[in-house]
Amino acid sequence: MNEYSSRLLETAVNELSRLPGIGKKTALRLALHILREDKSFASNLGGSIVKMRNEILFCAKCNNISDDNICGICSNHKRNENLVCVVENTQDVIAVENTSQFNGIYHVLGGIISPIDGIGPNDLSISKLIKRINEEEIKEIILALPSTVEGDTTSFYIYKLVKEFDIEVTTIAKGISIGEELEYADEITLGRSIINRLPFDKI
Amino acid sequence: MNEYSSRLLETAVNELSRLPGIGKKTALRLALHILREDKSFASNLGGSIVKMRNEILFCAKCNNISDDNICGICSNHKRNENLVCVVENTQDVIAVENTSQFNGIYHVLGGIISPIDGIGPNDLSISKLIKRINEEEIKEIILALPSTVEGDTTSFYIYKLVKEFDIEVTTIAKGISIGEELEYADEITLGRSIINRLPFDKI
Repeated sequence: MNEYSSRLLETAVNELSRLPGIGKKTALRLALHILREDKSFASNLGGSIVKMRNEILFCAKCNNISDDNICGICSNHKRNENLVCVVENTQDVIAVENTSQFNGIYHVLGGIISPIDGIGPNDLSISKLIKRINEEEIKEIILALPSTVEGDTTSFYIYKLVKEFDIEVTTIAKGISIGEELEYADEITLGRSIINRLPFDKI
Repeated sequence: MNEYSSRLLETAVNELSRLPGIGKKTALRLALHILREDKSFASNLGGSIVKMRNEILFCAKCNNISDDNICGICSNHKRNENLVCVVENTQDVIAVENTSQFNGIYHVLGGIISPIDGIGPNDLSISKLIKRINEEEIKEIILALPSTVEGDTTSFYIYKLVKEFDIEVTTIAKGISIGEELEYADEITLGRSIINRLPFDKI
């Protein structure tokens, strides 16, 4: 006799609790919710998970996840193909897209250099980025990586590789957040935003 | 162009975010985790959800969810069939089982009386409980419902119906906090409440 009186329930709870941040109690709550809903709810949920995992591709150009060989951003001719924003992962593409402030294209590294996690430059799509700089008409790359030791290391590693090319290399501005009080900002961020101050009439 | 650059991802995120307590950002995090794992991870997860929903049954005797027509607890002859613990739902069966203090069988109401949610006595398996008292050799029922207004109302409703029968009606000791749901109570407190159950007309 298992804890849940049903092996079907037990299996579903075990599978759900393998998701990040979902413990056994939450998994049970989710499973019982699924049991209360129509059968179509479970088949839509389960089906969409399996279909996504089996059919999703990585864009041959920018390495972002995509339904097709070339993703919707790379194949959109209204985007500026001279401007490439280099990001860690898909979440960051979504975050930048949500700002509506960027009309270029992307390059998704698939991670950042992190020796402690055993991730080196060869585990990331850095050589693919160099190949793109050689083959495409890229005029500027924006390094939009996390503001952490690993992010800075990765940015510097890429900068060293690409500085010999005739392209501009920029990085997103670091400073205090919009709406943030100065007194609550950390010293390093506030210091950086003072060093990188801008002419008032240009903001 | 949708927000996620992939309709497959978008669909999975939308389905995941229909689960209780899972917002769009969490759903995206879960979907991207699934994409990083092996295909077997997605097929096990998705498959177990669909299979559970399609194949699970309700025990013809106690109304608990079950893989078979009669659940593992009701069909276990080592359990005391004279003693029936009346609970709101499956979570509560699991909670009581986890105390290891109860060797009887269950009756799952499938909810409690809650006029505000439009749930009346006829929406619950109360008449089935009366039928069981008539047909089975039940000597005692333990009302193990939440210590809330709705739970107390339901307990009292059932007590009025069953007091004419020659059975003992008890309720779990109010060792658990007033207003607390059974599924969140710790095992020791809930176990003690079962041991110290009191005749319903003495509380």
